[in-house]
This record gives sequence, structure tokens and C-alpha cells, in this order.
Amino acid sequence: MRLLECVPNISEGRDEEKIASIAEEVRKHRRVKLLDCSSDKDHHRSVFTFIGEPEAVKEAAFSFTMKALDLIDMREHKGDHPRLGAVDVIPFVPIQGVEMEEAVQIAREFGKGLGKRGIPVFFYEEAATRPERKDLPSIRKGEYEGLAEKMKDRQWKPDEGPDRFNPKFGATVVGARFPLVAYNINLKTKDLPLAKEIARKVRFKDGGFPHVRAMGVDLKEREMVQVSMNLTDYRVTNIPKVYEFIKEEALKKGIEIEGSEIVGLIPLGVLEGIAQHYLNCQPFSIRQVIEQRILEFE
Amino acid sequence: MRLLECVPNISEGRDEEKIASIAEEVRKHRRVKLLDCSSDKDHHRSVFTFIGEPEAVKEAAFSFTMKALDLIDMREHKGDHPRLGAVDVIPFVPIQGVEMEEAVQIAREFGKGLGKRGIPVFFYEEAATRPERKDLPSIRKGEYEGLAEKMKDRQWKPDEGPDRFNPKFGATVVGARFPLVAYNINLKTKDLPLAKEIARKVRFKDGGFPHVRAMGVDLKEREMVQVSMNLTDYRVTNIPKVYEFIKEEALKKGIEIEGSEIVGLIPLGVLEGIAQHYLNCQPFSIRQVIEQRILEFE
Repeated sequence: MRLLECVPNISEGRDEEKIASIAEEVRKHRRVKLLDCSSDKDHHRSVFTFIGEPEAVKEAAFSFTMKALDLIDMREHKGDHPRLGAVDVIPFVPIQGVEMEEAVQIAREFGKGLGKRGIPVFFYEEAATRPERKDLPSIRKGEYEGLAEKMKDRQWKPDEGPDRFNPKFGATVVGARFPLVAYNINLKTKDLPLAKEIARKVRFKDGGFPHVRAMGVDLKEREMVQVSMNLTDYRVTNIPKVYEFIKEEALKKGIEIEGSEIVGLIPLGVLEGIAQHYLNCQPFSIRQVIEQRILEFE
Repeated sequence: MRLLECVPNISEGRDEEKIASIAEEVRKHRRVKLLDCSSDKDHHRSVFTFIGEPEAVKEAAFSFTMKALDLIDMREHKGDHPRLGAVDVIPFVPIQGVEMEEAVQIAREFGKGLGKRGIPVFFYEEAATRPERKDLPSIRKGEYEGLAEKMKDRQWKPDEGPDRFNPKFGATVVGARFPLVAYNINLKTKDLPLAKEIARKVRFKDGGFPHVRAMGVDLKEREMVQVSMNLTDYRVTNIPKVYEFIKEEALKKGIEIEGSEIVGLIPLGVLEGIAQHYLNCQPFSIRQVIEQRILEFE
């Protein structure tokens, strides 16, 4: 079984009935599995995770989006989280047996389909059509409220769909990216500057490991500090690399690691990499995992 | 999805047509997946691995066994591997969401069913009815050729089925056991006595870790030696424990680990334990693995 994941973020986090009927659009696709749906009332936003064969995921994403656009009106939307439209962001994520090029192709086809239905679409990350659109925050800058003005700028003509502002939909950002591993390491100290210093050393933008974003966080209640990370391509920088590095950096100051946390879902490939690293067992493959083998029957 | 595995060993490893038609009995059970089938011509023996919900696995095992007994005649069987009957051994192995007690119950019901069809059945391992039948080699001692004589001994009256020798079937050993993890560690040395010494230290019967069997092996072609292990309950002794112990023992003699090998299939729980050990991330669960979550829809 080849697996592509889709993680749409929509601008509705309060009306449970609406959220359920949007989720239903995914559930009714028999070949796609809805793994998660989490809503945040303050952000007035919901994030869905579903997975399946690439074409099936594209189809499910399309009916999902049509339903969400039908039920959500951006003119009434207020929330804490930055957003550009009713269906705000839709990344396609290759999990297994799918190359990034295929995920990009799916994203582009999907975006084209939305464009035909009158929704302005911007492509981001690996699906971006120009370097300044790779980054989500720069596309989203000015948000929904600034979109009408932003779209008048030729530089911000949508990649698909009309280049006129649509007050109900806003715009949708569609893309392809690798699965993101959210990984935190807790240090046995209340020394927040130390956590921040280590975060700087480990993250790519300050000269650290490629595909690592990191920040130092104060866990006040637990009386500890944390290096909170996103690994944006675990095939290049996997968990053991940052764990061993941070362990050593902390030890230089006489501080130990209290524990670590893998947050949310990860692909099996992450565990494969952990076993390979610590046990020096290179030929080991996820195909040796019984649960993986069962999936391949699908 | 709850997962029980079944690993029957049959006394036919040469006639591909027969082997295929026996395998077909598993394949036609839609709710059971045949993960592996490997035959050995010298041993004149085949090992099948299939998996599914407990009741479905029991049913598939039953039609599998009936077909095998139909096609195999022990009076014509010669092979290098010890064996007692046409369907020689059938262990049921709890993989996920199934307790050992349930696997034992399935084994006992399955054995009772075979007994009703006239096949002498001995229960072994966790399904054994007396201590001296826990161990497969002691049940199989004397082999098929000695079975008629052995069954005259009241101590070796079968647990199910007739207590008369059946020349065509021989007898079947049915049981329940935990999944076995075959794991080898290769040492950067040709010093076989060292591998044997470490194997002694790590294995349970000589005072080592519980649920570990081990031996020292000479890898002549690769100019190395190996500590070859079976972990018979990875929940008690998992890979990291033996890896770190052997690494330390070898280092005492100035020897390094060249690498290690996980042989064959393992449950996802083994990888979960590896991540928990090395990353000190206790709350991590296999339910965070995307592939695992997909399975749960079945």
C-alpha cells in the first residue's frame, strides 16, 4: 500500500455540527482513513489528518474542501491563529512508497481543481511556483483581512483560480511537504537561557542540523525547561542525532536529560531510523515489522 | 484490530503444488493474511506465518491443517529436521491486543477440534497441560518413528484425540507462545570462545537475562563471530538490554560490535521498546505510529 497523508486546516473550530459534517466527507471515502481531527475554539480552527493511496486522498481532499467552503463564511470568522481563508492550508505529505514529486503533482492537480471552482490558490513548500512562496507565513502575511489588497499586487496573483478577492472563501494555500516530527527534550534544570542556547545550536537557521527548527521553552509547572523541535525531514536529521547532541551539550553544563517526547503521529520510518542508529543494524527494514506487512495487503 | 499470529510447521518442503494448495487454504480466508511461507527441501518442511483476529486465525488454521493432513503421508517422509507428524507444530502467538490466556484458549479449542477428527494432539509451551510437556524437544523426542512406542507409555497419552498411533498423520503439537525475536550481534573478532563466553553470560539458563537463549557462532566467511539470540519475551528482555550488555562485555576484552541483525518479522512493540529505552520517552506508544493507526480501522 502506498500512503499519502493530507492535513487540511480549516477556519472553523467551534460549530461541532459543521465540523462533523465536513469530517463526514472524508469518512465516506472507503479507501481513505481519517486518523485525527482536532479543533481549537480559541483559534476557531480545526486540523484533520487523513491518509490513503494518493489518488483516493486527492479525491477525499476535494469533497472535503467543497463541503468546508460551503459551510464556512470568512466574513464571520475571528480567531487567534493566522489564516487566509475558509480552507486555509492543505499540505499533502508522502508517508510511504510515494515520492515527493508525486505529492507535488497531486497538490498541483488538486489546486487546479479548486481554481476551476473559483477559489484563489497559492502553492507553498515543495509545490511552490516561486521561491518567495515556499514559506507559509510569507503567503499568509496580512491574513484574510489584507488579502483583497495583497491580491492587487501582481507579485501575489494566485497560482490557480481567479485573481479577484472572494470574501466568503478567502484563499487556500496548497502544498506538499515531508512529514513533520514534533520532538521535545526535557532538561533537569530551570535554566531557560540554557534551553534557548541549546535550541540555537541545534536548529538549522543558526548553523545547526539541516531540517531542524527549535526553541527553548519554560515548563513552569514541571519545573524544567525544554528544547522543543520540529524535524522537517527525518530522513536527513532523525531523532537520535538531535538527542545525542543535546545530551552532550547539556552534560557540558552538568545538566541531564529528564526525558523526551514524541508528539503526535510519526511514520514507521522514524522508528526504523532509531533502531538502525542505536543498534547499528543497517539492513533492518520496516518490512520486517508485522504490522507493516499486514498493511501491504491493502 | 486485535492480532493473533499462527506459525504452523508441516512435513512437506518439496512438492510445490501441494505446498501451494495448503497455503491456498489460508489465502481464501479473507480476514487472515498469509505473511510468509518458506520451505526447506533438505528438511522437507515448510513454515507458514499468518495473522488476523483470533477466531479467524483459528478457523484458517483448521482448514489449513485438514488440507495438509489430506495431502501429506508421514509413511513417505524423510527429512533432516526433527518431527512428529504431518502437521508437526502449530503455535499461536499473541501480537497485539490479545492476552496470552486467550491464545492458550484458542490453542486448546483448536487442539480439541483436531482430536475430534482423529489426530493425536500434544499441547506445549503456555498451552501445556503438565510441566514435562512445556518443552517442544521433549515432546518430539523419539520423533515420528518412535511415536507408536512412545504413545504406549501412559505418560505420553495425547492431550486430545485417540491414543492410538496413526501412521499417516503422526501427531500434532499445538501451543501458545510469545513472539520470538531472533537477534544477532556481530563482534569485530574471530575469537569464537569469546562469543561463546558472552552467549553464556547473556542467556538465562546460565544465569543471564530472563527469556534469552543464546549461542556463539563462527561467521567464517565474514571473518567475525556472532552472539546469536532468541528473545522469547521482548516485554521482559528487549533488544537494548542485550545490546548494551554485550557491548560492554566485548569492550572489556577490547572488542567492538561490528553491527547487529534483526532476523525475520518482529511486532511493532519491539521498536516501541527500543525508542523508549534510548530516548527515555516513556509515554511513547505504537498508537502514535501512522501505520499502526491505519490497521486499527480494520
